[in-house]
Amino acid sequence: MRTDAKTHEIIVDLTDNLIVSDKVYNGSGYPLLTLEEQTAANELPLTYAPFIASVKKRGLNVSEVICSSFTIGWYGEKRTKRVLKVMCYYIDGAVNFYMRPIEGITATVDLDEMKITGYHDRLMVPVPKADGTDYRESMQNPPYDTGLKGMTVFQPDGPSFTIDGHTVRWANWEFHLAFDMRAGPVISLASIYDPEKDEHRSVMYRAYLSELFVPYMDLTEEWYYTTFLDAGEFGIGLCANPLKPLRDCPENAVFMDGYFTMQDGKPEKISNVFCLFERYAGDILWRHTEPALPGDTITEVRQETSLVVRMVSTVANYDYIIDWEFKQTGTIKVTIGLSGLLAIKGSVYTHKDQINEELYAQLLAENTLGVHHDHFLSFHLDLDVDGDANSFIKTNLKPVRVNKKDVPRKSYWRPVNDMAKTESEAKIKLGLGASEFVVVNPNKKTKVGNYIGYRLIPESVSSPLLSDDDFEQIRGGFTKYNLWVTPYNKSEKWAGGLLVDQGHGDDTLAKWTLRNRGIENKDIVLWYTLGFHHVPHQEDFPVMPTLSSGFELRPTNFFERNPVLKVKVPKQVKWPNCTK
Amino acid sequence: MRTDAKTHEIIVDLTDNLIVSDKVYNGSGYPLLTLEEQTAANELPLTYAPFIASVKKRGLNVSEVICSSFTIGWYGEKRTKRVLKVMCYYIDGAVNFYMRPIEGITATVDLDEMKITGYHDRLMVPVPKADGTDYRESMQNPPYDTGLKGMTVFQPDGPSFTIDGHTVRWANWEFHLAFDMRAGPVISLASIYDPEKDEHRSVMYRAYLSELFVPYMDLTEEWYYTTFLDAGEFGIGLCANPLKPLRDCPENAVFMDGYFTMQDGKPEKISNVFCLFERYAGDILWRHTEPALPGDTITEVRQETSLVVRMVSTVANYDYIIDWEFKQTGTIKVTIGLSGLLAIKGSVYTHKDQINEELYAQLLAENTLGVHHDHFLSFHLDLDVDGDANSFIKTNLKPVRVNKKDVPRKSYWRPVNDMAKTESEAKIKLGLGASEFVVVNPNKKTKVGNYIGYRLIPESVSSPLLSDDDFEQIRGGFTKYNLWVTPYNKSEKWAGGLLVDQGHGDDTLAKWTLRNRGIENKDIVLWYTLGFHHVPHQEDFPVMPTLSSGFELRPTNFFERNPVLKVKVPKQVKWPNCTK
Repeated sequence: MRTDAKTHEIIVDLTDNLIVSDKVYNGSGYPLLTLEEQTAANELPLTYAPFIASVKKRGLNVSEVICSSFTIGWYGEKRTKRVLKVMCYYIDGAVNFYMRPIEGITATVDLDEMKITGYHDRLMVPVPKADGTDYRESMQNPPYDTGLKGMTVFQPDGPSFTIDGHTVRWANWEFHLAFDMRAGPVISLASIYDPEKDEHRSVMYRAYLSELFVPYMDLTEEWYYTTFLDAGEFGIGLCANPLKPLRDCPENAVFMDGYFTMQDGKPEKISNVFCLFERYAGDILWRHTEPALPGDTITEVRQETSLVVRMVSTVANYDYIIDWEFKQTGTIKVTIGLSGLLAIKGSVYTHKDQINEELYAQLLAENTLGVHHDHFLSFHLDLDVDGDANSFIKTNLKPVRVNKKDVPRKSYWRPVNDMAKTESEAKIKLGLGASEFVVVNPNKKTKVGNYIGYRLIPESVSSPLLSDDDFEQIRGGFTKYNLWVTPYNKSEKWAGGLLVDQGHGDDTLAKWTLRNRGIENKDIVLWYTLGFHHVPHQEDFPVMPTLSSGFELRPTNFFERNPVLKVKVPKQVKWPNCTK
Repeated sequence: MRTDAKTHEIIVDLTDNLIVSDKVYNGSGYPLLTLEEQTAANELPLTYAPFIASVKKRGLNVSEVICSSFTIGWYGEKRTKRVLKVMCYYIDGAVNFYMRPIEGITATVDLDEMKITGYHDRLMVPVPKADGTDYRESMQNPPYDTGLKGMTVFQPDGPSFTIDGHTVRWANWEFHLAFDMRAGPVISLASIYDPEKDEHRSVMYRAYLSELFVPYMDLTEEWYYTTFLDAGEFGIGLCANPLKPLRDCPENAVFMDGYFTMQDGKPEKISNVFCLFERYAGDILWRHTEPALPGDTITEVRQETSLVVRMVSTVANYDYIIDWEFKQTGTIKVTIGLSGLLAIKGSVYTHKDQINEELYAQLLAENTLGVHHDHFLSFHLDLDVDGDANSFIKTNLKPVRVNKKDVPRKSYWRPVNDMAKTESEAKIKLGLGASEFVVVNPNKKTKVGNYIGYRLIPESVSSPLLSDDDFEQIRGGFTKYNLWVTPYNKSEKWAGGLLVDQGHGDDTLAKWTLRNRGIENKDIVLWYTLGFHHVPHQEDFPVMPTLSSGFELRPTNFFERNPVLKVKVPKQVKWPNCTK
């Protein structure tokens, strides 16, 4: 926490109500911004004379202005002040103020003094019009959408899962679900029932979204520093929303609350911070039709039903939908949906033909630029595959040239397994070649002798395009590889470091792994970085349709055979034949 | 068609009941196998003395044997006979006979003579046991799955789509859906309503799965030739199954029939070959929470509902689930699910420790090998983006080094657009670098001056690992690149060629594009190849949990703004409060 303009690392004994230790931290980086600090900072310009003058000069009314806080990163400065920058927007009856930036102004706030310590009004740019930016249903103009007929998920006997404190049990799964103000949902002690062994077998000790890096690609004075580390600067959990029943989650959802600490240490509740629901999307779990046997054609089909744990975090303009999905097959699927509002920059331009300079952005509407940016999400995946001593195997599908007289084939491929011995051997950029990535328990094998394992399967792949020596890339150094493996270390929780606001990138996954520690037959952590490059398009304006990506953790010779072979055809729920 | 041991290309005038032309084809390749031919070929071994002797020698009972037909590809031979190979399996009370190959025998059938013309019994291998391979629900042994509580999709007012002949209308979409015995579902004349322009705008002239290439990686005498072109050899449509209501498709599905021609020219119906249903999986179409405004927090959320068109094709052991999904955002999403049964090879081995040779396969159970293989699916995507004259733009996100005194940044990225002029410039291997691929209408722009376009977004990416000069890779040459663009040509429908059984690969997408034709501002076709490398795992035995991949076609500056801004919160369907 931050007090007396110093960062304190305080360990508290809750049982005995004692402060066990209180150390002042003098390294680089500052803790998470509190909501109170941001609120206070956002109000400063509204009473700051130079800002009021800037607003007047633009012919705007200061009572219609709203400001938002932006962390400033680190660009090699020897700065010792805890500061942020404030960008302001014009409401004037509109609600979608992020579409209406008051461009050209840079206002720097010292958070410890809570005052504006830097101010520059560099240029005047028109504020984009509000027309067509309102996203509220009640404010839409004709022609209206005709609407679809009503549809719901109907579970007359209630859900098939139980929640006991924070322990969730569903189908063959059992796991613990906790809320963290930095990471949001934390899944731990996930295990799956194996009917063949008649026991719950360990899959994952703990997993969560460790950091979220969002670098923008605009080099101008007002924008160059916008390279956010959302988890460590703003808190994915702290920015979580109470989920809206029937909207954010379907009718069959069950909700859970979450708690975080306010600046004064008091607990604050976020109601409905998680929802859990069974998902049946009409998908097929497995099937086969066999027409070749004597007698009738056999058609056996099982339906895919899964359990979804959802949280939504709105970090200022962006909404992140975080789904952890548990499948009966043993697969854990993580899906990240990006929605909400683009970071919009004001512009003098109303048509592309007028543009003769580099804008770092796409023209989405008159005077409205969507700035190029990336989103990189780093997941801490501490798998414990059938026990905590695990190893990491890269399987490369190697093309082989054939030179055999009796075979007319000239080529084929062969999987080549390579067990990574050290951290260096497990740094992997995806997209180059055909590979599988498996965390195995090297001490256990299936009956026929395969290592028991779980495999990471990426959905789409993105890697950073920034230079390694660039300041923001040093701070977001954990994005350099899509996959990393580390030996478990209690202090290595956050891929971008513990204290990241204005941090120098000296405590990241990229730095820890330079020690090149052994990772064979150890309690290891798999880190996966998922990325999006975002060139905005007009369809993203004035609110973005959800853009999704994710990954799966899938059992790979973990079970002796298909674990959903015995999944039953579900009890048929009749459509109720009664008055609506 | 095939008659008098010749391949005839016959053009028939259905209106006047006339044969317009009848040409004998003398090039490489033969037409689709008929179901009748396969049935006849599969029965030949059962009365063939050397085969009966082979079965007896193995201590098996020939009345419990069942055989299946396999196309043989082309390996440079100057063969002039239309032949296939037959592999046989042991039922003996089991239904999952594909798990029980009678290994070591090669039987070649001449289809025109319909007799066995080649036979070799090379080695004896144990037939894998049937224990645990039955996938029928009624035949499972304890411990049973406990089962989930009942769940259904409930649409009291019926579906929101209409089917008028073969024209489907749903939400903002309108398209034609046809059944083809080779391709399965064919989507054509797809257009979307633009409320801003108050008109339906063209998106896609025609799209379908053009070929499906499945090369296996086993070099032994009995397996080396297994490199199938499922669409052109077996027919994705011809192998389609009647969909099982409530299993293959949810309760709210509507079914359509399909027709194909039998060997004698008579039409045959496949009932319920397609299902159409509205899908609501609990996903969020778009959302934003705005806590920063004066007054109450705004939370606006819209639910994602889509329309799914499904067909399932069972090509012998494999089941392919083909979904065309239409979204209100304008996105068309194609998902291919692989389920069914692996191609299994018998083996002497019961444990990995016994293995000292290369097996081209994974040991999945005692005496049971899952052979390494790929699946490549080539889609013919004839987009007509707001008209038929289109161009293809590659947008590369280019890393740029910064050398500016006033900016502390050292790097950023910039999208660089490159409009492909010829077919060569549009051959693209994915996975290398950050790019976007857009089909645009170069004659139309949005109000602010962006090209109107639709973008292809791959889900996961695979490329072939076979040598370019390898025979099967020549026949499957269309897999070399993930993306190709051709000018529309009526005769270029099938990526692997019109006649592919035993074909020499002289009529493929790879060959057509060697002409390097112009593709700018023309009616163009985008070809996308989706791939899976499959190293089987024990979870795939004895029936595979569905493995999925796909791609999206997404509007990209096609609309002036988010086309789902005005989508309504759906009418709330109350859970019926009446007796179940």
